[in-house]
Amino acid sequence: MKGVIMIIDGMADRPIESLGGKTPLEAAKTPNMDRLASSGINGIMDPIRPGVRAGSDTSHLSILGYDPYSVYTGRGPFEAAGVGLDVRPGDIAFRCNFATADDDLVITDRRAGRIRSGTSQIAEAINSMTLDGFEDVEIIFRESTGHRAVLVLRGPGLGDNVSDADPKTEGKPPKKVKALDGSPESQKTADILNNLVRESYEILRDHPVNTERIRNGEAPANIILPRGAGAVPDVEKFEDRYGLKAACIAETGLIRGIGHITGMDVIDVEGATGGTDTDLESIKNAIKDALDDEYEFLLINIDGADEAGHDGDLEGKVEFIERVDSILGDLIRDDIYFILTADHSTPVSVMDHTGDPVPITINGPEVRVDDVSVFSERAAAAGGLCRIRGSHVMDILLDLMNRKEKFGA
Amino acid sequence: MKGVIMIIDGMADRPIESLGGKTPLEAAKTPNMDRLASSGINGIMDPIRPGVRAGSDTSHLSILGYDPYSVYTGRGPFEAAGVGLDVRPGDIAFRCNFATADDDLVITDRRAGRIRSGTSQIAEAINSMTLDGFEDVEIIFRESTGHRAVLVLRGPGLGDNVSDADPKTEGKPPKKVKALDGSPESQKTADILNNLVRESYEILRDHPVNTERIRNGEAPANIILPRGAGAVPDVEKFEDRYGLKAACIAETGLIRGIGHITGMDVIDVEGATGGTDTDLESIKNAIKDALDDEYEFLLINIDGADEAGHDGDLEGKVEFIERVDSILGDLIRDDIYFILTADHSTPVSVMDHTGDPVPITINGPEVRVDDVSVFSERAAAAGGLCRIRGSHVMDILLDLMNRKEKFGA
Repeated sequence: MKGVIMIIDGMADRPIESLGGKTPLEAAKTPNMDRLASSGINGIMDPIRPGVRAGSDTSHLSILGYDPYSVYTGRGPFEAAGVGLDVRPGDIAFRCNFATADDDLVITDRRAGRIRSGTSQIAEAINSMTLDGFEDVEIIFRESTGHRAVLVLRGPGLGDNVSDADPKTEGKPPKKVKALDGSPESQKTADILNNLVRESYEILRDHPVNTERIRNGEAPANIILPRGAGAVPDVEKFEDRYGLKAACIAETGLIRGIGHITGMDVIDVEGATGGTDTDLESIKNAIKDALDDEYEFLLINIDGADEAGHDGDLEGKVEFIERVDSILGDLIRDDIYFILTADHSTPVSVMDHTGDPVPITINGPEVRVDDVSVFSERAAAAGGLCRIRGSHVMDILLDLMNRKEKFGA
Repeated sequence: MKGVIMIIDGMADRPIESLGGKTPLEAAKTPNMDRLASSGINGIMDPIRPGVRAGSDTSHLSILGYDPYSVYTGRGPFEAAGVGLDVRPGDIAFRCNFATADDDLVITDRRAGRIRSGTSQIAEAINSMTLDGFEDVEIIFRESTGHRAVLVLRGPGLGDNVSDADPKTEGKPPKKVKALDGSPESQKTADILNNLVRESYEILRDHPVNTERIRNGEAPANIILPRGAGAVPDVEKFEDRYGLKAACIAETGLIRGIGHITGMDVIDVEGATGGTDTDLESIKNAIKDALDDEYEFLLINIDGADEAGHDGDLEGKVEFIERVDSILGDLIRDDIYFILTADHSTPVSVMDHTGDPVPITINGPEVRVDDVSVFSERAAAAGGLCRIRGSHVMDILLDLMNRKEKFGA
């Protein structure tokens, strides 16, 4: 028996007047999801706790059975792992922007003209730097998509309780990074970052990629703005914890990072963009291949509905949900426990995550099929699971797979 | 007002194809249970947490409001209390088998030819022994049913973190007991056990009961194999905790032991076997008598459905549930809060406990009666209790009985 948790990121929503009071999921035509609901057991799920606005990262951790309040130190470690960096417990990781600064170090473009190419050469220039006085700390830097990058500091005596360098606005210089807890460890990290931001400008100002960009009238990527510090947590590997050989099929660095840090095989999918323009056929084929492979557990994340929610794009969200539905028909099999859910609501009205619960349906040979025949936020609430939490999902799945130890006699 | 919790052990199950997708409880004709559901408030209950595979012991503890994660040290203490031994906090208790060993101490029959008589004399021979070098430790030993027995060590400086002597297979000698935590306390217990196992052979080899068995061509019960060590927990008495004079009507030593350790009066029921062949009329009469008595709370456990589940006996499980139903009619009264539930699912397909939730119905004068009209795993999920945990049951019951303190003003 295999287990699959398929998470349609941000799919859940709130009732929308222009949809006659329906949610996008209720308005979308989703015959395959409805089929899963009909042949499964349904319920609503609070990814963390009722009313808690979960991030995708904290929600996924919770659904995988990890306590986000003890494991989650910030987004940095997961983003860093997501671009393939071999992060290690104790490393301090950051998300970064490539940005444009003028000679006074005032940020004129936080995204360096939304730079799309040449970032790997620029990143390499940062990756190989050392900072005077901090020779004991290794600086690991890699480009992510577009203007995004990750930074990892590896060395003794580093803390992660530091403020962001990113001023989050243009027309200002980078913010001075501070040790928020006053500890010498965080102060060391802050000192390194303040040096690194300044040094990055020195290194990148005349970098060939930037010279070329300036010649083309494009904003140069001549400064690095780190934010979202987090110490890489010491996470028990998924396979060690559950005894299941696991793979992760996800589009975004954040969720791929969760796959990496929990020790799953993270499968690359060509054409997966993380947006509504993603290649769902390609994702479908990757899932089918993984199901045919030796894996006993798959974590799947598809991100487009969340993007549409963040963009307030109602039509796009409905359409994307329908397109996701269309690939599900080929994925339903008898020999797997298949869980379909979302990691949080991303209402188009709010354009951000909310704490509303999400629908969940569990299909498989021995579930107590209930009377729910539609997959939606409200229909699911009448189902046989009633209301559960993200932290219950793995226990329920492992129990159905008969992979749980008995507690007692 | 009296409160009753009646637990039909292992009654809940999963849908079964040969029953048209029904569970045994759904397939069984249970007019009395359905009447309770109709006139009560219903829900599903996770004895411990969703997806956790509870034992009968850990589930009962949880339902009685004790945290099994802090109270439960192993099966030994409850089995020992269940045969009527006056166990005390700090005692180290074990389940044991009477087994057969040859002259090289190789186990030739782990159950001593499923010995049924004479065990009390054999047990007495062990019970009175002392071990050289461990004169400060009292050895308390009593037979249970069949080839089963219990051992209690009482004395200073004993630990319970030791391995089993029972090799769990024939053709091998008893396993050397080891201190699993390396502590001197557990080492002392291990040393005692290793001596006791060897000594038991010396004492029992020529015991008159065994001489007689050998003469009859039966395997002698000439060695003791302890397992399942646990320190007897210091459990607050049920009456001290809740102010209710309580009795326990249960068939198995394990649940009777929970009654003893929580300080309930444990009522003997003639003809109660713990199997599907049990005398349900006799159990019914014992319940009626206890209800007419001064008790304010009754814990009732009937075990046959669990046995049928473990045996994979679908027909037997359905039939037994119907027979249990037939005694319920005489037990429904207006002046009690009556809770009917199970301690866990024991699906006939799995032949062991699973973590699926169980149905629960609460009857009594002031419950918020819901629309559920059938007592079953799935019907209950639509009830007014929604999904609760075992640890909530006593609080809900006491509140309905108006026996709870107010928290706040």
